[in-house]
Amino acid sequence: MTDVTEAMLRPSEDELIAAYFAPLAGAGAHGLLDDAASLASAPGQDLVLTKDLLVAAVHFFNDDPPGDIARKALRVNLSDLAAKGAEPLGFLLGLALPQDWTADWLKAFAEGLGSDSAAFACPLLGGDTIRTPGPLTISITAIGAVPSGGMVPRGGVAAGDHIYVTGTIGDAALGLKLRHDAAAGRSWTQALSAAAADHLRRRYLLPEPRVALRGSLRRHARAAMDVSDGFGGDLAKMLGLSALSARVSIESVPLSAAAREALSLEPRLIETILTGGDDYEILCAIAPADRAAFEASAAADGTTVTRVAETFDGGQGVLFQAPSGEILRLEKLSFQHF
Amino acid sequence: MTDVTEAMLRPSEDELIAAYFAPLAGAGAHGLLDDAASLASAPGQDLVLTKDLLVAAVHFFNDDPPGDIARKALRVNLSDLAAKGAEPLGFLLGLALPQDWTADWLKAFAEGLGSDSAAFACPLLGGDTIRTPGPLTISITAIGAVPSGGMVPRGGVAAGDHIYVTGTIGDAALGLKLRHDAAAGRSWTQALSAAAADHLRRRYLLPEPRVALRGSLRRHARAAMDVSDGFGGDLAKMLGLSALSARVSIESVPLSAAAREALSLEPRLIETILTGGDDYEILCAIAPADRAAFEASAAADGTTVTRVAETFDGGQGVLFQAPSGEILRLEKLSFQHF
Repeated sequence: MTDVTEAMLRPSEDELIAAYFAPLAGAGAHGLLDDAASLASAPGQDLVLTKDLLVAAVHFFNDDPPGDIARKALRVNLSDLAAKGAEPLGFLLGLALPQDWTADWLKAFAEGLGSDSAAFACPLLGGDTIRTPGPLTISITAIGAVPSGGMVPRGGVAAGDHIYVTGTIGDAALGLKLRHDAAAGRSWTQALSAAAADHLRRRYLLPEPRVALRGSLRRHARAAMDVSDGFGGDLAKMLGLSALSARVSIESVPLSAAAREALSLEPRLIETILTGGDDYEILCAIAPADRAAFEASAAADGTTVTRVAETFDGGQGVLFQAPSGEILRLEKLSFQHF
Repeated sequence: MTDVTEAMLRPSEDELIAAYFAPLAGAGAHGLLDDAASLASAPGQDLVLTKDLLVAAVHFFNDDPPGDIARKALRVNLSDLAAKGAEPLGFLLGLALPQDWTADWLKAFAEGLGSDSAAFACPLLGGDTIRTPGPLTISITAIGAVPSGGMVPRGGVAAGDHIYVTGTIGDAALGLKLRHDAAAGRSWTQALSAAAADHLRRRYLLPEPRVALRGSLRRHARAAMDVSDGFGGDLAKMLGLSALSARVSIESVPLSAAAREALSLEPRLIETILTGGDDYEILCAIAPADRAAFEASAAADGTTVTRVAETFDGGQGVLFQAPSGEILRLEKLSFQHF
C-alpha cells in the first residue's frame, strides 16, 4: 500500500478508492467495485438510517488533523444511531474533495476513518467521491438495526418523565469558543490550565458517541435524541413534540472539571455550556417507575447518566433555574444553522 | 403552505424542513421530526444502497431549473438501483445550501423532488440540511430491495456473453457539449435543428432511469451497471472486472435522431458520444442462451435494448470498430473525475 501511495501524488478516483477505502470495506460492499452495496436483512429487524453532512470551516477547521475530521464525521452519525437504540451495520461515505487535496491528506483521513470503523464495528459499504470547487464536504449515511418496532423515538415523552443526559455538557462548545477566544486574546483562555484547555479542545475535535447505552435506551427510554445543536434547544425540541415543559436546575447539569474551571474564570460561559452545540451526548426520557432499572442498566454499560429535570404539562418550554432560584433568560436555546 | 412560504424569506432549518420536505416524507420518516428513519425489513430481501453527490457547476449548471436539479439528483441514484435490479424503497437527502439560497429556489427544488419521488414511488426518509460557504451540494442515498442474493453485480461477465445497452447513447454528453460549443459559437450548434438541440439539452438536464427493466435484469442479466461516466469507459470497467474484452461495432451503438443529426454536422462528435458521461442508460451482459428471453422481457417492460458486442477472453479492453473495419483510437474512454 505504501508504495502505491507514494507513487501517486494525485490518484484517479478508482485508484484512490482502491488504495484508501477498499481496505475499510465490509461484506456487502463488493470491494467498492460495484455501483451499490447490498445488505441482507435479518427477520424481526428494522433498519435505522441517518445522515449528517459536514463542511470545512463550518463543522470543523481546515487544519484539523484529517484523521480526526474523518472520525468526527463518522461519530456524529454513530451518535444518532446510539440515541435511537440501534446497532451499527455500516456506512456510506460521500466525499467532495476540494481542488487542493493531496494524497497524504487523504491517506490520513482514510486511516482515521478505518480506525473508528473498526473500533465501532461499522464497516464502509460504499459511497461516492467527487471534486468540488468549494470546501471539503463529507456526507455520511449510517445504517443501524433495532428489533422490529424498537427504534427509540424523539417524540413520546409523557408528563412526569425524568430527563437524563449522558456524560458532561458544554465541553465541545467551550472547546470551540476557546479556539476563537484564544485567537482574540480573551483573558479566561490565558488563565485556563493546559489540561483543561486540552480536554475542551479534544471534546470539540472528537465526540464520544454513547454507543454503549443503546441497549439500555431500547429497554427503558420512552424517547431519546442526541445533543448536537445545544442542550437547551435540543431538550426544547424533544419536549415540544409532546407539548411538555421542564425546569432544569443549572446545578444539576453535569459538567466536566475543565468546564467548571472555565466557568469559574468566566461566569458568562454558562450560556455557551447550556446552548452551544457539538456535545453528542444523549438526552432521554425515563418513566418514573423505570428510573432505578435504567440507572442500573446504564451503570452496567459503563455510561454515566445524570437526571437533570422532570417534565410537566404546558407550553413554558425549557426553563433554566440558577442556584439563587432565579430563572435564567438565555438569548437563544441552541445553535442555529440558518 | 403558500402563506407560510411567502411569510418567510429565509426560514430556519426546522421551518424549511416542515414547509418543503415534510410533505415528501414516507412512512418510516417520522414526519422528518426524528434524528433517523426506520425501515422494516422484509424476510427474504436484501437491501441495496447507493449514494451519489452532485455539486453546482460540476454536475449541473447554477441556473438550471431547481426542480430539474432535484430530479436529476434523485434519478442518478434511481439509475444505480435499476441497474442492480432493485425496487426503490426510499431515499435520504443531504443538502448543503450556499449563502445566497432563497425560499423560492428551495420551494421549486422541493416540488421537483416531490414530483419524482411520487412518480418513482421512492419516498423521502430523512436527511440533513446545512449551510455551506461553497456551492450548492446535494448528496442522496437511495435504498432499494431485491430478493435475497438477487442484486445484479457489476462483475461476473463470462466470455461469449452478449452486451446490451438500453435507450440511446451520447445524447446527454452532446447536450452538455452543445451548451459549451454554442457559447463558443461553433458551427455545428448553429446548424442543428431546434428539435434536436432541445432533445440533447433535455437528456443532459434530466436522465431517464431505466427502472422498468429491473425485473428483466434480475431474471436474465449476468452483470449490469449504469452508464454514468461514458459508454466506452464504463463498459471497459465492467469487462475489466472479469478480464474480458469486446469489439464494439460503432454502427451498432444506438443513437437518437438528434445525435445522428449532430454527428452528420460534426463527425468528430463520435468521440463525445462514445466516451462522454451522463447517459444513465444500463449496460448488461446476457448469456447466449438467455438472449431471446431477455429481449422478450425487455420488450414487455417497454424498454428498448440493443445488442452492441460479444465478449471474448483477453486484455484488449474495449475496441471500437468503424464501418470501414478500422479500429478507432479514442483519447480516453470515459469522463475522469480527477
